Amino acid sequence: MTQTALRQDLNTRVEEVLRERFALHCTTAEAYGPEFAALWRAGADHALGGKLVRPRLLLDVHHALDPDAGDGPITAAVDIATQIELLHYAFLLHDDVIDGDLTRRQRPNLIGALAAGTPGISAQDSLHWARSSAILMGDLILSAAVMGFARADVPHETRLRLLELVEQTILETVAGEHTDVALSHGIIPSDVETVLSMSVYKTATYSFSLPLRAAALLAGSSRSAEETLQTVGRHLGLAYQLQDDLLCVFGDHRSHGKDAYSDLREGKETAIIAFARSTSAWTRIDPRFGAPDLNLADAEGIRDLLRECGAERFVVGLIGDQLDAVYALLAEAELAGEITSDAARSILVSASRLEGRQA
Amino acid sequence: MTQTALRQDLNTRVEEVLRERFALHCTTAEAYGPEFAALWRAGADHALGGKLVRPRLLLDVHHALDPDAGDGPITAAVDIATQIELLHYAFLLHDDVIDGDLTRRQRPNLIGALAAGTPGISAQDSLHWARSSAILMGDLILSAAVMGFARADVPHETRLRLLELVEQTILETVAGEHTDVALSHGIIPSDVETVLSMSVYKTATYSFSLPLRAAALLAGSSRSAEETLQTVGRHLGLAYQLQDDLLCVFGDHRSHGKDAYSDLREGKETAIIAFARSTSAWTRIDPRFGAPDLNLADAEGIRDLLRECGAERFVVGLIGDQLDAVYALLAEAELAGEITSDAARSILVSASRLEGRQA
Repeated sequence: MTQTALRQDLNTRVEEVLRERFALHCTTAEAYGPEFAALWRAGADHALGGKLVRPRLLLDVHHALDPDAGDGPITAAVDIATQIELLHYAFLLHDDVIDGDLTRRQRPNLIGALAAGTPGISAQDSLHWARSSAILMGDLILSAAVMGFARADVPHETRLRLLELVEQTILETVAGEHTDVALSHGIIPSDVETVLSMSVYKTATYSFSLPLRAAALLAGSSRSAEETLQTVGRHLGLAYQLQDDLLCVFGDHRSHGKDAYSDLREGKETAIIAFARSTSAWTRIDPRFGAPDLNLADAEGIRDLLRECGAERFVVGLIGDQLDAVYALLAEAELAGEITSDAARSILVSASRLEGRQA
Repeated sequence: MTQTALRQDLNTRVEEVLRERFALHCTTAEAYGPEFAALWRAGADHALGGKLVRPRLLLDVHHALDPDAGDGPITAAVDIATQIELLHYAFLLHDDVIDGDLTRRQRPNLIGALAAGTPGISAQDSLHWARSSAILMGDLILSAAVMGFARADVPHETRLRLLELVEQTILETVAGEHTDVALSHGIIPSDVETVLSMSVYKTATYSFSLPLRAAALLAGSSRSAEETLQTVGRHLGLAYQLQDDLLCVFGDHRSHGKDAYSDLREGKETAIIAFARSTSAWTRIDPRFGAPDLNLADAEGIRDLLRECGAERFVVGLIGDQLDAVYALLAEAELAGEITSDAARSILVSASRLEGRQA
């Protein structure tokens, strides 16, 4: 099988495992009434729409680290990749509740879909019903993901290390989300350093470090290789998040999947904004930043100011720094014999395949 | 050691384990900034205030089922009892978010405490901050509890059965909570049968069936004993919930720990209300039921109507049915040699020690 065919095959397997698991949950849910079954069906519908970037990253890197892995280890890797996708979906669900979002990838998210699907009750009650349902579905998926790690068909010692990894991941992701909420209310002052560490915790840990470390763990790599991959994941994840931030403000809005300038309308504390706050341009950006009725002219005005004050250039530079750090870490790990050059190349290829605003 | 001294000792051990775990989490949290550390401290403060009724039930029944258990099995039972208390706290946190509650046991809950502790931002933003924090703390505690089951120091087969038990428990509890929200919005019509099955799922499963089944599992009881205890737990839990409902409407409000008539003010769909809906008295109850400004005279008027229409008598009768079922199940299990008469007595004593509105 060629590399591409193998990759395609593994992705299909992740999708199939996810589909089977949700089908089973939907059937089990019938016993608790039609509303609960409907919640699971809606959950399945939304969970299965993703691009599976985290499972792909894990499986690609696992293959690169252990190209001769047999059926057993590959099945275990597919299983853990599936749990990571579930974890991602659980985080999205609670994130959308906290942010008050009703859409994702330009279509209604679970909350939006449920709120629209309850005729005969007030809009306020519909929204409460939909958000409560999303909190509860998130709890189910979060515990299912942890339970999946706990049941991994690997030696007990490996399973304990996987559990430690997922525990650390959940802690950091929640800490990052908590800091994000604090920033949005001005409870923590916004500066570049705080925003960057928030992004690492909230996004990079579970989206990049987790799949990379899990791949290393399952491939039987050394602890030092795993630690290197954790750091590589942080830099890649930060680069990805910064790229995503740039796209929303400076990107071509016809080609990426998010409302134009939504970050500016929502007053999101990105690295772009944190930098701009430290410049004299901020007094001209501040009055309309985060205005719910921000129109296109306002947004373009802010965009131009963000460009003029150097925020775009600054963040482009930060992305370059992250990628430089990744190259240096991988080169060093290769030299030290921690990972093969094939694995290093695979990580870079996987990372470059990621697109912002869609994952 | 006497029975009482042993019980006291085990409760102290559960408390100590919980205290140590939270202390460790608080220390780890420091690395993620002062707000996150403060969240953990507040979480510990609220989680450690409980009466540990679920851990006590597990440990009492475990002792009755396996009176000669050595240090290893007792330590495992204390450990699992602690995870069940964490699970309880995780459910409370998300329940309070969903219900919009700011108090519990007549003092501010985590949300109330956090909302009051953020000067300098608007009341609406404070509430959002506090609720978001409670969602996130609930996620951390929920995953910590599942992880605790996954790490239980018991044979792998027992661990897998414990995981199955906690998975089933989380599913039923969430399904019950989901039905409760649906009932509160009239998305599901309220009738006695629906309200009773909702109560079993939402409360009885995790508060009674889970500790009883875990005790049986850890004591090495037979599968049939475990199944009997699951059913016993459902009846006990339902009796407990119905007693709690009665207390809130007909109880002496100076002696139980909840606002007088809060269920009537919040429009809670209890078995009392579901029964009353089927009587001619409902047209006189309906107009003020669930009114946020319900005063004492209104509440006492509704209370008298609920008494007159037979709802109180009906629910008292239901409680009797549950306890009869428990006696019959335990007698049968004793006859079949599934459990000893000591164990049967211990379950009844533990159950009778529970007080409503405080647990």
